Amino acid sequence: VAEAGHGPRRVLIVNAHPEPRSFNAALRDVAVEVLEARGHVVWVSDLYAMGFKAVLDSADFPGEADDAPLNVSMAQRKALTQNTLAPDVADELRRLLAADLLLLLFPLWWFGLPAMLKGWIDRVFVSGAVYGRTAVFEQGRLCGKRALVAVSTGAPQQAFGPQALNGDMADILMPLHRGVLGFTGMTVLPPFVAHHVPYAGAQARGAMLDAWRAHLQHIDELKPLPMPRLADHPEALAAGARAQ
Amino acid sequence: VAEAGHGPRRVLIVNAHPEPRSFNAALRDVAVEVLEARGHVVWVSDLYAMGFKAVLDSADFPGEADDAPLNVSMAQRKALTQNTLAPDVADELRRLLAADLLLLLFPLWWFGLPAMLKGWIDRVFVSGAVYGRTAVFEQGRLCGKRALVAVSTGAPQQAFGPQALNGDMADILMPLHRGVLGFTGMTVLPPFVAHHVPYAGAQARGAMLDAWRAHLQHIDELKPLPMPRLADHPEALAAGARAQ
Repeated sequence: VAEAGHGPRRVLIVNAHPEPRSFNAALRDVAVEVLEARGHVVWVSDLYAMGFKAVLDSADFPGEADDAPLNVSMAQRKALTQNTLAPDVADELRRLLAADLLLLLFPLWWFGLPAMLKGWIDRVFVSGAVYGRTAVFEQGRLCGKRALVAVSTGAPQQAFGPQALNGDMADILMPLHRGVLGFTGMTVLPPFVAHHVPYAGAQARGAMLDAWRAHLQHIDELKPLPMPRLADHPEALAAGARAQ
Repeated sequence: VAEAGHGPRRVLIVNAHPEPRSFNAALRDVAVEVLEARGHVVWVSDLYAMGFKAVLDSADFPGEADDAPLNVSMAQRKALTQNTLAPDVADELRRLLAADLLLLLFPLWWFGLPAMLKGWIDRVFVSGAVYGRTAVFEQGRLCGKRALVAVSTGAPQQAFGPQALNGDMADILMPLHRGVLGFTGMTVLPPFVAHHVPYAGAQARGAMLDAWRAHLQHIDELKPLPMPRLADHPEALAAGARAQ
């Protein structure tokens, strides 16, 4: 059943865990179940299962002259204009641009994204398609879309916090929340964090999946994270903001 | 000429840029020149040139049973103990453990590491070798080594800062500085940042390379970044800190 006044929405779930039976895979399955039950169209990019190419390199831009140094942003903009993006990038970008909601599901590795998911961003967040010279934050090309991150960690909850050894999860996720999702104009919803996952028994895992289910069921009530506004930064408007 | 009282030191330079003629490659070449002139032994891991495998996956752990779910930390610790690490990981880890100084050189992509370099960390920063259950920060296995990050950006310097649109570079690099390098016990030196690189002419590039040369020449006078101490976090000592 689609929500009143909205019609079916489209959701892109991107998950990146090397183990198909992982807790992350369970997070994905719960998300598919909850969102399809709400009448949404749900696409899943299971990056490891797809064998997604994680490394952006010159092979992505066969249209570039061999003797010209590769400038990534310029090569992306040219490939976008000339319809010569790598096919896997074009497919992912098409779904990203068509989606109303983006879910990123991953284990926190070294206080960041697994390389597989970072590579999906490096390659699919194409300059000119998701942002432009002054098309960032509230002017970003992904305005109107929502994004939500669900992350699993191997440390107990008390290891995170403003005064804790590992620091605050908001600071750890800032480059993703602000530098990727907010930067392109997306409305960033509060993340879901599952702690101590490798050491959790069946009961604790079940409780975390229930909490994730509730997080998704109340998604329309979640208060977005604050983001900077380009309009408040005339100096950036003049110079042009750039992600790369 | 080696520095008095130290003998030749060993430096591992890891750089990750898809373009061999990039400014990042010039940063690497300057570093090799300056450090070799000081009598250091310098190893270079040019990840794109090596075609380094960036994605950690189950193929890294052939010793794991096919029917057992992959737990990354446990598989790493087992492979380390049984000498079954993937050969490319073992090679990189050997150099990391032998090095006194680690330099990471990369373009800032989406407020973070290119997937190629993140994958080097995901795979080479092996659990049990670089950190342990309570072997983190001042107890980390990489104590005594120094680390220094050099990063290039596509935005002008004024786009970064505590009040600027892109936020402060210290916050952007925090997950790497604190969550990777400091976490494993390394002494983290202040980063070198080259701004607006794709739009800089030959003169501006030359000036930035001169600044980089000076940064390296004064490396022994750089004041390390502050890091948390495990000893100040008895709760973490009890629970065990974990990076994954």
